[in-house]
Amino acid sequence: MEAFLLHGPKDLRPATLPRPRPAPGEVLVRVRRAGICGSDIHYYQHGRIGRFVPLRPLVLGHEFAGEVAELGEGAPAGLLGRRVAVDPSIPCGSCAHCREGRYNLCSNMRFFGSASCDPHLDGGFGQFVTVPAANCHPLPDHLGWAEAAMVEPLSVALHAIERAGGVSGRSVLITGGGTIGLLIALAARAFGARHVALADPLPFARAQALAVGADLAFDPTDPSADQGEGCEIAFEAAGAASALGLALATVRRGGTIVQVGTLPAEVALPLNDIMARELRLLGSFRFANVFATALALLARGQIAPGALVSAAYPLARLPEAMSRAAGRDGVTKIQIDL
Amino acid sequence: MEAFLLHGPKDLRPATLPRPRPAPGEVLVRVRRAGICGSDIHYYQHGRIGRFVPLRPLVLGHEFAGEVAELGEGAPAGLLGRRVAVDPSIPCGSCAHCREGRYNLCSNMRFFGSASCDPHLDGGFGQFVTVPAANCHPLPDHLGWAEAAMVEPLSVALHAIERAGGVSGRSVLITGGGTIGLLIALAARAFGARHVALADPLPFARAQALAVGADLAFDPTDPSADQGEGCEIAFEAAGAASALGLALATVRRGGTIVQVGTLPAEVALPLNDIMARELRLLGSFRFANVFATALALLARGQIAPGALVSAAYPLARLPEAMSRAAGRDGVTKIQIDL
Amino acid sequence: MEAFLLHGPKDLRPATLPRPRPAPGEVLVRVRRAGICGSDIHYYQHGRIGRFVPLRPLVLGHEFAGEVAELGEGAPAGLLGRRVAVDPSIPCGSCAHCREGRYNLCSNMRFFGSASCDPHLDGGFGQFVTVPAANCHPLPDHLGWAEAAMVEPLSVALHAIERAGGVSGRSVLITGGGTIGLLIALAARAFGARHVALADPLPFARAQALAVGADLAFDPTDPSADQGEGCEIAFEAAGAASALGLALATVRRGGTIVQVGTLPAEVALPLNDIMARELRLLGSFRFANVFATALALLARGQIAPGALVSAAYPLARLPEAMSRAAGRDGVTKIQIDL
Amino acid sequence: MEAFLLHGPKDLRPATLPRPRPAPGEVLVRVRRAGICGSDIHYYQHGRIGRFVPLRPLVLGHEFAGEVAELGEGAPAGLLGRRVAVDPSIPCGSCAHCREGRYNLCSNMRFFGSASCDPHLDGGFGQFVTVPAANCHPLPDHLGWAEAAMVEPLSVALHAIERAGGVSGRSVLITGGGTIGLLIALAARAFGARHVALADPLPFARAQALAVGADLAFDPTDPSADQGEGCEIAFEAAGAASALGLALATVRRGGTIVQVGTLPAEVALPLNDIMARELRLLGSFRFANVFATALALLARGQIAPGALVSAAYPLARLPEAMSRAAGRDGVTKIQIDL
Repeated sequence: MEAFLLHGPKDLRPATLPRPRPAPGEVLVRVRRAGICGSDIHYYQHGRIGRFVPLRPLVLGHEFAGEVAELGEGAPAGLLGRRVAVDPSIPCGSCAHCREGRYNLCSNMRFFGSASCDPHLDGGFGQFVTVPAANCHPLPDHLGWAEAAMVEPLSVALHAIERAGGVSGRSVLITGGGTIGLLIALAARAFGARHVALADPLPFARAQALAVGADLAFDPTDPSADQGEGCEIAFEAAGAASALGLALATVRRGGTIVQVGTLPAEVALPLNDIMARELRLLGSFRFANVFATALALLARGQIAPGALVSAAYPLARLPEAMSRAAGRDGVTKIQIDL
Repeated sequence: MEAFLLHGPKDLRPATLPRPRPAPGEVLVRVRRAGICGSDIHYYQHGRIGRFVPLRPLVLGHEFAGEVAELGEGAPAGLLGRRVAVDPSIPCGSCAHCREGRYNLCSNMRFFGSASCDPHLDGGFGQFVTVPAANCHPLPDHLGWAEAAMVEPLSVALHAIERAGGVSGRSVLITGGGTIGLLIALAARAFGARHVALADPLPFARAQALAVGADLAFDPTDPSADQGEGCEIAFEAAGAASALGLALATVRRGGTIVQVGTLPAEVALPLNDIMARELRLLGSFRFANVFATALALLARGQIAPGALVSAAYPLARLPEAMSRAAGRDGVTKIQIDL
Repeated sequence: MEAFLLHGPKDLRPATLPRPRPAPGEVLVRVRRAGICGSDIHYYQHGRIGRFVPLRPLVLGHEFAGEVAELGEGAPAGLLGRRVAVDPSIPCGSCAHCREGRYNLCSNMRFFGSASCDPHLDGGFGQFVTVPAANCHPLPDHLGWAEAAMVEPLSVALHAIERAGGVSGRSVLITGGGTIGLLIALAARAFGARHVALADPLPFARAQALAVGADLAFDPTDPSADQGEGCEIAFEAAGAASALGLALATVRRGGTIVQVGTLPAEVALPLNDIMARELRLLGSFRFANVFATALALLARGQIAPGALVSAAYPLARLPEAMSRAAGRDGVTKIQIDL
Repeated sequence: MEAFLLHGPKDLRPATLPRPRPAPGEVLVRVRRAGICGSDIHYYQHGRIGRFVPLRPLVLGHEFAGEVAELGEGAPAGLLGRRVAVDPSIPCGSCAHCREGRYNLCSNMRFFGSASCDPHLDGGFGQFVTVPAANCHPLPDHLGWAEAAMVEPLSVALHAIERAGGVSGRSVLITGGGTIGLLIALAARAFGARHVALADPLPFARAQALAVGADLAFDPTDPSADQGEGCEIAFEAAGAASALGLALATVRRGGTIVQVGTLPAEVALPLNDIMARELRLLGSFRFANVFATALALLARGQIAPGALVSAAYPLARLPEAMSRAAGRDGVTKIQIDL
């Protein structure tokens, strides 16, 4: 099968690999669509993500959907030939975190297209992937591949909203208009937030925010910009100290900030505000227990993120697609069409 | 009546003031015991706390107990002559925060011995204070004045524990062995925490921690110190960036940090941990809805903080008492005996 | 002024009363629209609600909106002439329940058009009512009187949803397609519930449920009816033992039932299910802290309950309106137009 | 090996069975102590529990501790010869309930000594049991067998307290002074409840309640008994409609009732109170995520339930022990000593 292997920083090489064979309980998925995530871009640019350094050339990509092409022993016969979205999380099910229902924090998590587990699991930027049958969520016929490959990032957005305790009826600020920020805006709208504002210096990101239903989109670097009223809940999805600073300054007394973006190693901020105004700063990492819900909301059209898919490239042009996704301006989600 | 007025930094002056008259619904409390809080010391040393600058000479002190010496119109007759602990919070009862039960965040809070409200309310470092009858909590006979003046700081500790969602059965770290840190340790013990560790560079603070039942007390500046296992909940009661850094490094994945101490204006920390390990950083400001509970637990002896009261000075020696309290070494709580 | 007084069961009499004068902090509201609630009907039919027996002839009606016609001393000048929706709750602000933010449980609650407080407060089935200024919520120009008088019952629905911990992404069953049940369905839709089913024996109620966006409406008395999948959250808004029994039988293991309707004095049910399947049965009484949110969602059109207002009668025909509302079939909300 | 098999109602027969062999990942536990639970008594008396009917003669007993006598393939070598308490829950780890951390509701739960799973797992009323290594919790040397076999029922009590959201500083009522009720009283005391009352018609149960630290024990059938103040949280551990009725009548407005006991098939109660006083009625079924905590608290002596073990019988006298346990008067927990 054809795939792309990451060999190091900026070093993605096409390769012809043996087609994997599904183990008992697994299925073989022929990938049809795979989205490029910010973490894929980070791997591409730096060859690693912090302490996660690939020990061998790795196939990236954890946002993917495809068709079940082959069944491993004991996999449900009904899956054969089905179009499915793949949940890329394979938690151990028995560590303390799994037992407590927070399997996104699993001590033994295996995750597709990532160097965070050893041995690594190759991801979706290749023609075939073997996947536990339970990770395959059948798609309704009317749902296209583009949206199917958005179930994973939408799950990240829904998990962030759950961490906050919900947004229905609340006033919300989102810092950062990348895919996750925009999906949070879209979901906040679908969940009945009273007011949704989004801050991003890029005009394109602000235009996208308004297109998905935000009430206000402003440039946080423009001191004259109308920033709206203070919010009850802020989602920090930019991964920047200045964005977290804006969230701290904007959230009303007693309010909540959810940190979804990846921050630099060290950030300097007036954290005393958290005590003096009794705020909550809550981390949100990947997701747990929402993949099926995300798919259901997409399938019913309650959340329609199709407009966030800016372009789809053939697999052969993956490096170009990575570069374009990294550029951010003019694009939100870039996918690979296989 | 005799009292001490704060005129500016390090400028506490004795004064003879007119005895206040209780307004309708109020009572006159003859102060018997008043504790010196870290915020009193801060006012004494800097003449202000951040943006709270006294507009006139101010009587400090918000941890006090005494006898009801006179009733204002309509105050319950049964209060006359009663020994009472005074809840220093007078929230408005009608702003959004009050309506939501978080009256410690009241937009119109009046607080004794503080420049945070205008006009200021004189506090307990004087012979008499007028207090709303509802703020007076009658004391059982067997409870001494020293413990009665500890109800207020104990309320701060209990509120921090409530913010965390309770500590029963949990492993807890407390950074900072001042009065609040030690009261959290004492309460955590009384509430069935599974393991209580406290970090403080001062040997005296560590000895106090062990005396109130901590399982472990260690010097965070000593790299060879046994820091125990990771904790599920950390209470940052030192008000130092290094202490919050220790909490971030120690709390287990998915855990909780409660910020109780006052941090410097800006702190630089690896906050990405909050996202990557899905932590919660929760502010805890003063207290709400726990004063009566704190008193009940003291009255029943379930929490006995008497040993934390290191010394009591007569009112005339308030400046000396302030200096000794500021020194920290060898003392925990210093009170004024009137 | 013209009003209707309840003298006893089925005994509503027109009366000319002195126009009330606003006390300090109050305003005089000229009522324009007042909805008939199930509790008004109960008062009308039985002359009382359980232990709440009017001590004097009473003007009913607590769902009303109107214009501010006169200001009491100290009321904000900006209110004069404003169109407002009136929050009928006047909690004391100082009892333990108020302090904890659950002011709907206030021990000293005063409530318009009800015999639950002594002295009673006359309600909205008269031309004028005096109201604390803080209870008046200004209306945007585009919001009609019919919807303005729906803010109160919508608040009841939103409170029930908050008790459940939100419905976004969840599967929901509502038993009872009266005003509250239908408003819960409408709000569940607006808050992104994944699936909304409603059970009611009346075909009209089921048609209304589908009209406000329910996915399924079924007759619980029809054994052949498709009842859908099991739900995660059930709202019991019928006030019938059989309805609560349906909720118990339908909610999935670990799920939640919110009791909103008024049940008969004693009900016999297989309550062991609550233990054996670890359910939660949560009461929901009136509302707290959601009136402004309900109005904002109405004003923005995120929730549009106009279609639930079946008819408006002039004040002179109040008894006829009461009877028609009591009939239920063919009507949801009946209002009085003044 | 020697064991007792349940053949039907009141039909427990001694049997010599083949010693089981540990499968991979399992260990063989030589049982030293096994407690008799109310459900064991129910099986003994009725031959079944509701719809759980043994399909073959069954060894009862799920509260047990013993020594690891043999290792299955891959079991940790360090376990051999260790004294262990056994967690009797073997959830699947992959159903929706397990994924959400509520593994006590697992759709595929296997549980020792119970007919709730098929095939049944024989329990602790026999000399040997094979157990997954992960279910074995090593005991400290100083902890005796009697207390080790109490870790399981203590876990049930701690789970009930967690369902309530904790008891620290709260006023608590417990209905039913059997083992679970008394363990809740003991734990409530250890967790800093402000006031603990227990209701039971049996003088012996009331004496035990006072012995474990309850502030008040009263006879609910005695109309002249002092029932104390209203409580904030009630634990219904009697499994009787009258007891739940007492809880409903006693809990203060806005309070919480946890149903731990097994109720009769149908109970008739004034459930409208749940709505009118906005109560919560929460089921509590077995336990999840607290076994290790329960053991730690026992090991540290923070909870010392030894006094609740009334007697230990040799295995040969199991039927007599069952009858005595069923009698309740004069006994709390009866154990089997092997």
